[in-house]
Amino acid sequence: MPAVGEVKLNPGRADHPGEGYRSRFTHATEKATPGYYEVMLDDYGIKAQLTATQRVGVHKYTFPKGKNGHLILDLVHGIYNYDGKVLWTNLRVENDTLLTGYRITNGWARTNYTYFAISLSRPIKEYGYKDKEKVLYNGFWRRFNMERNFPEISGRKVVAYFHFDTAEESELEVKVALSAVSTEGAIKNLRAETGGKSFDELAEAARNDWNSELDHFEIAGTPDQKAMFYTSLYHTMINPSVYMDVDGAYRGLDHNIHQAKGFTNYTIFSLWDTYRAEHPFLNLIKPERNADMVQSMIKHEQQSVHGMLPVWSLMGNENWCMSGYHAVSVLADAIAKGVVTNTDEALKAMVSTSTVPYYEGVADYMKLGYVPLDKSGTAASSTLEYAYDDWTIYQTALKAGQTDVAEAYRKRALNYRNVYDTSIGFARPRYSDGTFKKEFDVLQTYGEGFIEGNSWNFSFHVPHDVLGMIDLMGGEKTFIKKLDELFTMHLPEKYYEHNEDITEECLVGGYVHGNEPSHHVPYLYAWTSQPWKTQYWVRHILNRMYRNDINGLGGNDDCGQMSAWYLFSVMGFYPVCPGTDQYVLGAPYLPSLKLKLPNGNTLEIKAPGVSDQKCYVQSLTLNGKPYDKMYVTHDTILKGGVWEFKMSSSPNKRRGLTNEAKPYSLTKGILNK
Amino acid sequence: MPAVGEVKLNPGRADHPGEGYRSRFTHATEKATPGYYEVMLDDYGIKAQLTATQRVGVHKYTFPKGKNGHLILDLVHGIYNYDGKVLWTNLRVENDTLLTGYRITNGWARTNYTYFAISLSRPIKEYGYKDKEKVLYNGFWRRFNMERNFPEISGRKVVAYFHFDTAEESELEVKVALSAVSTEGAIKNLRAETGGKSFDELAEAARNDWNSELDHFEIAGTPDQKAMFYTSLYHTMINPSVYMDVDGAYRGLDHNIHQAKGFTNYTIFSLWDTYRAEHPFLNLIKPERNADMVQSMIKHEQQSVHGMLPVWSLMGNENWCMSGYHAVSVLADAIAKGVVTNTDEALKAMVSTSTVPYYEGVADYMKLGYVPLDKSGTAASSTLEYAYDDWTIYQTALKAGQTDVAEAYRKRALNYRNVYDTSIGFARPRYSDGTFKKEFDVLQTYGEGFIEGNSWNFSFHVPHDVLGMIDLMGGEKTFIKKLDELFTMHLPEKYYEHNEDITEECLVGGYVHGNEPSHHVPYLYAWTSQPWKTQYWVRHILNRMYRNDINGLGGNDDCGQMSAWYLFSVMGFYPVCPGTDQYVLGAPYLPSLKLKLPNGNTLEIKAPGVSDQKCYVQSLTLNGKPYDKMYVTHDTILKGGVWEFKMSSSPNKRRGLTNEAKPYSLTKGILNK
Repeated sequence: MPAVGEVKLNPGRADHPGEGYRSRFTHATEKATPGYYEVMLDDYGIKAQLTATQRVGVHKYTFPKGKNGHLILDLVHGIYNYDGKVLWTNLRVENDTLLTGYRITNGWARTNYTYFAISLSRPIKEYGYKDKEKVLYNGFWRRFNMERNFPEISGRKVVAYFHFDTAEESELEVKVALSAVSTEGAIKNLRAETGGKSFDELAEAARNDWNSELDHFEIAGTPDQKAMFYTSLYHTMINPSVYMDVDGAYRGLDHNIHQAKGFTNYTIFSLWDTYRAEHPFLNLIKPERNADMVQSMIKHEQQSVHGMLPVWSLMGNENWCMSGYHAVSVLADAIAKGVVTNTDEALKAMVSTSTVPYYEGVADYMKLGYVPLDKSGTAASSTLEYAYDDWTIYQTALKAGQTDVAEAYRKRALNYRNVYDTSIGFARPRYSDGTFKKEFDVLQTYGEGFIEGNSWNFSFHVPHDVLGMIDLMGGEKTFIKKLDELFTMHLPEKYYEHNEDITEECLVGGYVHGNEPSHHVPYLYAWTSQPWKTQYWVRHILNRMYRNDINGLGGNDDCGQMSAWYLFSVMGFYPVCPGTDQYVLGAPYLPSLKLKLPNGNTLEIKAPGVSDQKCYVQSLTLNGKPYDKMYVTHDTILKGGVWEFKMSSSPNKRRGLTNEAKPYSLTKGILNK
Repeated sequence: MPAVGEVKLNPGRADHPGEGYRSRFTHATEKATPGYYEVMLDDYGIKAQLTATQRVGVHKYTFPKGKNGHLILDLVHGIYNYDGKVLWTNLRVENDTLLTGYRITNGWARTNYTYFAISLSRPIKEYGYKDKEKVLYNGFWRRFNMERNFPEISGRKVVAYFHFDTAEESELEVKVALSAVSTEGAIKNLRAETGGKSFDELAEAARNDWNSELDHFEIAGTPDQKAMFYTSLYHTMINPSVYMDVDGAYRGLDHNIHQAKGFTNYTIFSLWDTYRAEHPFLNLIKPERNADMVQSMIKHEQQSVHGMLPVWSLMGNENWCMSGYHAVSVLADAIAKGVVTNTDEALKAMVSTSTVPYYEGVADYMKLGYVPLDKSGTAASSTLEYAYDDWTIYQTALKAGQTDVAEAYRKRALNYRNVYDTSIGFARPRYSDGTFKKEFDVLQTYGEGFIEGNSWNFSFHVPHDVLGMIDLMGGEKTFIKKLDELFTMHLPEKYYEHNEDITEECLVGGYVHGNEPSHHVPYLYAWTSQPWKTQYWVRHILNRMYRNDINGLGGNDDCGQMSAWYLFSVMGFYPVCPGTDQYVLGAPYLPSLKLKLPNGNTLEIKAPGVSDQKCYVQSLTLNGKPYDKMYVTHDTILKGGVWEFKMSSSPNKRRGLTNEAKPYSLTKGILNK
């Protein structure tokens, strides 16, 4: 934090602006584009500009003329801060233009090592620090003054300040390189990515990098639609993110330092969210990057004391957030689409992951075919999730030619049946003795055996065997009625209050778009005799849940999943069941979209005249040939060419009704099995 | 900690034995030899046996017949424990016979990383843990039971327990490997040093290793004298200790991981103590080991943000305990004795170390020629210490042929004169304006400008220019009188109370042997006309301060310094001024001593009939030739052969009185300069 005047070491309180080192600002002075941010810090008259390379944050501060500026380095500061989060901090003033140090924190990443190297464009004149927590045992350290101009600082709550002579030359550039390995690694990153380059050069490079990343698409649309589209694309590239020094060293799940050989190590795997559309989206647009992520997950499994692929991992930690073991879906999808080829190694990790007995009811799941409610509060949803995940292992085992494994997991993939109560047509948790939970509210999100979703939404979570699910729901007619009701019902607030991911703004009837379990649901009409309803509801959701204004998304982005859903749906197709090579068709959202494919081909998707009124697909040609299926395959997309949708204000109720037109389903349904 | 019965996770209080996991024991069941310890844990009936390799502690527990045992792994436990010392702990149950983990602590070693790998001879049946400090933010970690049989544990105050089936087979062997680098390093150490070996084999190997280490000497003497001698020898080999994995990786002062190339990295440098005799002793007995220590110190300097050699360093940390920059003395002594040859590299580190302006008054010292009392509470003693240290840099610069540097440091070596008040004949602190401190008590240890010593003792601290010091003290007669008085005066308790290193037991008159600054003082008679008095007082100190009983040493061992003093003094010579190649002669303590020198020669020191009565040297022959000097050189010792002392109950007052007989002195005194 840059400042002038009195040195303040506390951030201050929001209701007492001016009290601490923080500065007021107005959005009017902000400029924000990918890789660049600018704002005026009004309390100090300091112009702040920020850009970044992959591992280095780059700051440029212009101090008011005639005033000497200082920087505050608050090693206590953080988002979701609380007493005890910061375990230890260390800071070295290597010389008058280079700082190094690190911070170890205990938060969502249980043990998080953040090393840094900070390069300054002008020499420090004077510096010092305060440790806000009294050191209990300090030995002989304090025999001479170590609080001012003493280049080695450690403590729990260190806030340091650095004075600069900026009265004449008012600009200060600060390059902050990060590493999870060591300060040595941070210095390597600093030098490799920013050595000898000015802020302006680096900002220009960041702009160019983002330009070429966002250049995968060319679209026609309103300015709002364009902003929303490219913002979404930007979102899909934030997480997962690189977690490795320029020399390939990274901190593994075992906290040891590993060397990434032949891949780039990634972290931040919010898999309950991102297996659905984010990773499939990367398979399409950035397959090499997703292959690196898969490899990172396999290494995670090999470093895991549990022998498990990541559930929700970040910064060399597993935080066990949410449920399932959906990394297996990511691996299977990458294998199904030819993005990853080490099938045997992947399968080994998948089987290991799915058989850890102490993980959320797995021992019982393997014994009983479902997770019992007396063992887990998310018994029903976990059973549904495991069944789908197991299906992806089945698919991978088939690919690997391991028929015994395949057969075992094919059976496990049908376990979803064990938590369906056909008397009500919904999923319902069971106890170990086989009986269903007695008092049961299919609309209630809490306490009914589901995680962050109610039975109404979660019952549709059988993406790998939709026809089987339709039968359990009571057959096609009932199924369509239920889908219609889901999108149109009124859901009283008591069913979702106190959940930050489910708010009124993110509801379409009882359908919750702000949280993930239902993301595939609008596409399920494709398996029915009324597939055109997908075209209507998907457009409705695109319009309602994604806004180019301060309200933004209908829920948080969940590490790219919300945005990847948007991008797929805008293109007119969605990966309902990752692990197949199929995408279920909706309808294009924009009149024209060009996708530059990673193999060099271009796919042009045209839907002239498409609008909220003309939202229905009358007909479709792929490269001039009529196409009536309700899905396309990965290979079809990769071929590129031109897809031309003829749009209409009324649905074509005769398209896509044959069995051949329907997307993948493991079975033909319970009745036809 | 092994136990049977109820699992207790607290150690318990001393006044409530039986309350916690600790067990009562009696010394009667103890067996202790180098590399082996045994005791009966009476509360549990468990026989505990301990041995070690260089990096692995090896335990063997024999549980009572028919009872199942458990182990407590208390990651909070430590010596000098206090709330907040343990910053973070981590534990992984890799499999049912291997644990790994680490602990980061903040104590005397400000940031101390201790990684471990624990191998068990029988499988864990069940385990669990408790975190005694509530985790403030725990995210979703607790969704399923992670406190029992969950193999990954982290927290601030973790105490874990492990159950074993020992009812039938009652023995459990536990190998605890340490590393400062990583758990991977700890596993390497474990495998390299103990792989496939049983407790009994390792205990035997430890016994053999120590036997060969202690075999440097063969002595005649009483059982108590032998015990004291070999115990002292053992002490000199405990610290400094190896701080490096078997593959050469170690944690540097910058907390980064370094690779030791061509040397073994050592830590625990208690240099204010050990530069005096411990390192000179190692130069004589274990020169290769001391060369490694010197190299470790040079690497420390290169990794130091201050550009300083260690002051008091341990486990990759500098704790700044005590004063001076005495590592320069260790380097100079090793160079003077040919143990170390990279003189230029060493000199660079020495010069850098002695010119860090913010270190304890150095800026003023360089400007004024002394550390002023208004800037430092240890102004007088620091000036004396710097002056000697600077003399060692002078010597090294001469050796390196850098005459300008040599001349600068020769001048600095005379700075001791600036804190001598010739009007009282004692060292006395001065203020920046040049005036001496007004009220001044030469007997008081506290608040008079000296560190852990009074002016009476510290005034003798000019080992490099004894003749100069004698003049400042008032000439030879006064000097002898002062020395005599030092050893015979009565020092009232008020002059040393509250100092654990200075107690009545460690006083000989006003001479303090329990703390280091005076260790060379009994040898200063060698520069006078009454050198025989050294022979008397040294024997007196050997008898009084070193006991083969529970009272042990007169003060703590200070990392080998007290013991190295003993060993030198028993042999009959002492390195008063490390950095010269001279040892000042006293008299042998034992009738016969053989020293196996590292070059393969043997030195036999004979003093037939020596006793507390016959403590004076009548005459001395080296390999048959009469020898009348009051010192011997390093080369003379290395030649080996036989030294024969003729002992007598009355001193030979005519020996060693010529100028040629006197040991080194930088000047001939103030008067003759």
